[in-house]
Amino acid sequence: MGALKHLLDFTGWEASQVEDLFETAKLMQEVLERPVKKVPALQGFTVATVFFEPSTRTKISFELAARRMSADVVSFSPGGSSLKKGESYKDTLLTLEAMKVDAYVIRTDAAGVPYQATRWVKGVVINAGDGRRAHPTQALLDAFTLTEALGGLEGKKIAIVGDILHSRVARSDAELFSLLGAEVWAAGPATLLPQTLPGARLTTSLKEALSDADAVIALRLQRERMEAGILPSIPEYVAGYQITPERLAWAKPQAPLLHPGPMNRDVEVDGRLADSENSLVTRQVANGVAVRMAVLYHLLVGRNR
Amino acid sequence: MGALKHLLDFTGWEASQVEDLFETAKLMQEVLERPVKKVPALQGFTVATVFFEPSTRTKISFELAARRMSADVVSFSPGGSSLKKGESYKDTLLTLEAMKVDAYVIRTDAAGVPYQATRWVKGVVINAGDGRRAHPTQALLDAFTLTEALGGLEGKKIAIVGDILHSRVARSDAELFSLLGAEVWAAGPATLLPQTLPGARLTTSLKEALSDADAVIALRLQRERMEAGILPSIPEYVAGYQITPERLAWAKPQAPLLHPGPMNRDVEVDGRLADSENSLVTRQVANGVAVRMAVLYHLLVGRNR
Amino acid sequence: MGALKHLLDFTGWEASQVEDLFETAKLMQEVLERPVKKVPALQGFTVATVFFEPSTRTKISFELAARRMSADVVSFSPGGSSLKKGESYKDTLLTLEAMKVDAYVIRTDAAGVPYQATRWVKGVVINAGDGRRAHPTQALLDAFTLTEALGGLEGKKIAIVGDILHSRVARSDAELFSLLGAEVWAAGPATLLPQTLPGARLTTSLKEALSDADAVIALRLQRERMEAGILPSIPEYVAGYQITPERLAWAKPQAPLLHPGPMNRDVEVDGRLADSENSLVTRQVANGVAVRMAVLYHLLVGRNR
Repeated sequence: MGALKHLLDFTGWEASQVEDLFETAKLMQEVLERPVKKVPALQGFTVATVFFEPSTRTKISFELAARRMSADVVSFSPGGSSLKKGESYKDTLLTLEAMKVDAYVIRTDAAGVPYQATRWVKGVVINAGDGRRAHPTQALLDAFTLTEALGGLEGKKIAIVGDILHSRVARSDAELFSLLGAEVWAAGPATLLPQTLPGARLTTSLKEALSDADAVIALRLQRERMEAGILPSIPEYVAGYQITPERLAWAKPQAPLLHPGPMNRDVEVDGRLADSENSLVTRQVANGVAVRMAVLYHLLVGRNR
Repeated sequence: MGALKHLLDFTGWEASQVEDLFETAKLMQEVLERPVKKVPALQGFTVATVFFEPSTRTKISFELAARRMSADVVSFSPGGSSLKKGESYKDTLLTLEAMKVDAYVIRTDAAGVPYQATRWVKGVVINAGDGRRAHPTQALLDAFTLTEALGGLEGKKIAIVGDILHSRVARSDAELFSLLGAEVWAAGPATLLPQTLPGARLTTSLKEALSDADAVIALRLQRERMEAGILPSIPEYVAGYQITPERLAWAKPQAPLLHPGPMNRDVEVDGRLADSENSLVTRQVANGVAVRMAVLYHLLVGRNR
Repeated sequence: MGALKHLLDFTGWEASQVEDLFETAKLMQEVLERPVKKVPALQGFTVATVFFEPSTRTKISFELAARRMSADVVSFSPGGSSLKKGESYKDTLLTLEAMKVDAYVIRTDAAGVPYQATRWVKGVVINAGDGRRAHPTQALLDAFTLTEALGGLEGKKIAIVGDILHSRVARSDAELFSLLGAEVWAAGPATLLPQTLPGARLTTSLKEALSDADAVIALRLQRERMEAGILPSIPEYVAGYQITPERLAWAKPQAPLLHPGPMNRDVEVDGRLADSENSLVTRQVANGVAVRMAVLYHLLVGRNR
């Protein structure tokens, strides 16, 4: 089993690699509980966040992960940058490469850019979300959080609910959870389901997906799309697919509820559940920093050893 | 007298707490005079600047204060962030809390958000200006600068001049200066005076406020409001309330002149005074970093001892 | 020969000062090749990037240069800042000065602002591009890159091609290269040539400029201007002045090709050349960080010795 070079999606990954990464993430969790939340592991390394599509939460999570291992962080964002002057994605990355950047954390609405990037630069590429395609660090933090809660994913039934069609989170979650042995169900209105979702069974029946599930993941709905009439209306969605205490009762007792955030309160999830003991939303955010520290550490320091 | 948990306004503060803080600020001033302006006091702590309302000056002042004590700093700004996607103030802060942020420096045009924040997060909250309500670090740096210049505030007459009605600086200055024993006068056109200003006497007579004053604070006028006709016109304001050398002569000899910046030259203050020996504007900015270092130190390190 | 105080342009510079700087830049190149690309040379110093005009590439280059020498970096940008509230360039810089900034890296579309800044602040001023006037760190990295490639500039013929009239790079390159003993030619369409360019000979004949040249620098064209009809059309420019393999053959064999970036592929330079062995574009970017580290080091540490 070879060392990881990049993190793009989970093609070619083995379960043991994920478990290795989770061992490191547990050590990072301990670092984050200390009064001095800082280790010198990446001193002298430079991490660039290259967010062609804005996302403050994910960006700050990666920035903190890098800084708490003493890396230098630079942020490239297209606002006021050369992209407006006609510079290509490729030239942007080659410029950063020449400045001796070691890792590129790339978010873009164009699926595939992080994959191409691995051909352009010698540094490590981490996909922080590309179009509808993949969002692997979100899937890793979801799987890590579920493993904490359930003791492992092998043989567990996990239900993913919402706008499956447009969701890179659903795609990466299904890919990773099935690799780890889970039975993944994806439920949503017919217009929001893709033809297939590798690693998952698709259904329009929320009850079928939730029945006896070990955990439930509600996805974010893009209100903009709904308000533009492209998606079902919000009341329609809420009536059919909102996770309520009554519907969550279809799942196993104490089944945890996850959401990638930011949540539209009282849309995807009933407000009473959002702040309930079932909700692991805050735990997901906390684990996100630890998991991203582990990813940066494995890709950067694992490589040079 | 209990340890401070947050800095929201000066309700419940005692003068001795302010004096303690000023002792620390003096030590920080010494650090800032060294060739290597850096101490390890906050190594491993994370400070988030959460500016829902833009303010480069105040943000940079807090950032430098945190970095010069070796803290990590992350900046959350709503531009391109989840707030646009419908995330609430509360969810934003809970997300940062989950990422193990230790201190939140919050600026917002909505009065009260920093107060609510103390119920949402376990970390330290510092109000960096909320609506028209309070701007306590500005008041602390003003009081510190006046204490340097006058030897203390006990029994001194301090005049605050300008748009008192809309000014959080006036509100916090009056609260703090009166706590420290000063006699505070607030002067401005009738339309720019509030019904009451706790800790201060209100007057439309500039001469009454300035006569025999030990120091004068001119407030910033928001030209946008004047140009929109909401406030008196600029020539009208200048005629009645601009601080000129002739009017400053009503105060005690060598009375210092302060301004929270950025100044509209030749509006609030005659250009000749802005760069004169009376002006402590630059000193205020310098003291701002030292005072904010002291605030962060007292709230973060004082707490864990 | 006195120590350098600022970097504005090359007026009053001697060749030996440039050579000293290049010696330091070579040491910095070595630092950048190490696994831990960081030295403590500027610990406790604060560098402010003050970009009144946006430029992500140059800003990141300076930021990395400062951070890799362990300086603290703050970024002032007018977006959402006090400049919108009517604050002057001068007040902005005085505010940063009061906060104990040691070096100001200033980019502005107003020629002369960095020059005035040296009268306002006590810290070091580095011109990162002012209007059409000067861009001295670009010229230094160009000269450093040419020195690497050619063994020195004494007696070499260097051709600069493109929109000479609006280019601060052309102006600074000509000034510096001629100081170092090069013969500089500047070529472009008649409408894009200035009356004079100190240090260079002007010509509309691309062939005259390129014949027997030791190196060629293609400048960036601002497409916005061309599309607005102010400049010649793109096809017209390409026909007359694009650097193609055929035209580059007029120069000496293996003559290197430089471009300050970001390049408009297939406009200023034929796409085949952009990625060819002749192209030193990536090398220029890499050297940019090393040269800027040397500049910061000479100005900040050289001064205090």
